[in-house]
Amino acid sequence: MYRLFWADEGGLPANDRGLAYGDGLFETIRMRERRGVLLSRHLERLARDAGRLGIPVSRGALREVVTEAGNRFAGRFDNDWVLKLILTRGEGGRGYRPEPGMKPNLLVSAGPAPSAVGPAGVTADISPVPLTVNPLFAGMKSLNRIEQVMAARDLDHGVYEALMTDPSGALVEGTRTNLLLHRQDGWVTPPLRSLAVAGVMRQWVLERLRANGETVTERALAVEDILGSGCLGFYLLNSVLGAVPVRNLAGHDLPVEAGLATICNPLETLE
Amino acid sequence: MYRLFWADEGGLPANDRGLAYGDGLFETIRMRERRGVLLSRHLERLARDAGRLGIPVSRGALREVVTEAGNRFAGRFDNDWVLKLILTRGEGGRGYRPEPGMKPNLLVSAGPAPSAVGPAGVTADISPVPLTVNPLFAGMKSLNRIEQVMAARDLDHGVYEALMTDPSGALVEGTRTNLLLHRQDGWVTPPLRSLAVAGVMRQWVLERLRANGETVTERALAVEDILGSGCLGFYLLNSVLGAVPVRNLAGHDLPVEAGLATICNPLETLE
Repeated sequence: MYRLFWADEGGLPANDRGLAYGDGLFETIRMRERRGVLLSRHLERLARDAGRLGIPVSRGALREVVTEAGNRFAGRFDNDWVLKLILTRGEGGRGYRPEPGMKPNLLVSAGPAPSAVGPAGVTADISPVPLTVNPLFAGMKSLNRIEQVMAARDLDHGVYEALMTDPSGALVEGTRTNLLLHRQDGWVTPPLRSLAVAGVMRQWVLERLRANGETVTERALAVEDILGSGCLGFYLLNSVLGAVPVRNLAGHDLPVEAGLATICNPLETLE
Repeated sequence: MYRLFWADEGGLPANDRGLAYGDGLFETIRMRERRGVLLSRHLERLARDAGRLGIPVSRGALREVVTEAGNRFAGRFDNDWVLKLILTRGEGGRGYRPEPGMKPNLLVSAGPAPSAVGPAGVTADISPVPLTVNPLFAGMKSLNRIEQVMAARDLDHGVYEALMTDPSGALVEGTRTNLLLHRQDGWVTPPLRSLAVAGVMRQWVLERLRANGETVTERALAVEDILGSGCLGFYLLNSVLGAVPVRNLAGHDLPVEAGLATICNPLETLE
């Protein structure tokens, strides 16, 4: 079992390993009153990646906490709010090496939902901060996010997102979004094994596209794929923000289409 | 200026960015009463890397905190103890992107010194957890240490350290130590740009060796370099543990020599 902390009552103990080493995971879930967007997928990812790290926590236990959080926070916000769960391996241990049988800490907080992005889309830039993904931790929403912080820090005012590239120059993801390109020959997104964070919204949108008979290809994404003439639309995917069209990338205008919105409405999948 | 927290009085605020994103740095300093081993170098690294992250803190301010910590903690331990500083960007902000003008948090804690390793040396293994180093953050003792945690977690009982390799298979460093090989043709250590953490003990030992007229080469280190016949001795370097000879690597016995101990005594450089 875990030890539960409510952020509005105080922080984690000083020797928590989440602070010391980033030894933990987090989830940020868009809530409408007591229900969450793609909630089951968030909890499934958190429980699965905790297992990869050897942090014992069950989906059932996490769901109970979300219910409790709904009772606690739903009345404090207008309809939409954001629930954040930080799960750490727990307290102490000698250095990096965890002791067997450590009890995880779970810190629960809430905040207002961000304002919606209009269908006209956003601007994005390409970050000079490279993204390195350790294959053992690919896709994992761990607390090790210094690369994303430094890429976001560089953003000019008014630019919505910074896209990060791997050492070969391929576009991998934004600081807080996965990438999806609509081309005349189908939809393209970087493959799971290349991702720092495997977004639940990405997974859900790909499933909807495939269920709708669309062609979806998971492969490396070059800047030229997006700026070239085959591009029908380019999207940033995030479970709190939805599917956000990009109207300008690194100073180049992109076509903005209604394509994805006609296939699925990402923020309406409440559970 | 920073906001100072003493770990024996409580932890950081719930929305500290060190916990949320690993957005910060740390130092672990071996103390003898009120003086620290390689203290100036520790504070120099912390202030320099804080600058790389855009976290404003001066060496002078850090030194004042160490003095205060000495007054507070020295009487609680027998001579040797360990001082830990965790510096974070501070509280809050919207997502990864830091707000301008954030006030850093500094969390100070103390613990007993680890027991000394005898001249007979230790055993080490090669970790299956690969090490990926983002060139922008090379050498930086950030709070993003999930790779080191997972490599240390795998260690068999009685094995002192896990050595980590880069994607090409070259040995880079241990979970908490830098590597130094003594060969018949001189001393070899992996270069700074390849390191996850650029240890202050590594820097100090290399300077002592060079001052003593020894040949020191910074280049990629293969397992065969260590297991081959040219090896006179192989060391793990850490500013709290000193220079620790390895007597067995991955089941292969290595020669243990007095070579390094006759040139310098790493834990006696008090400042």
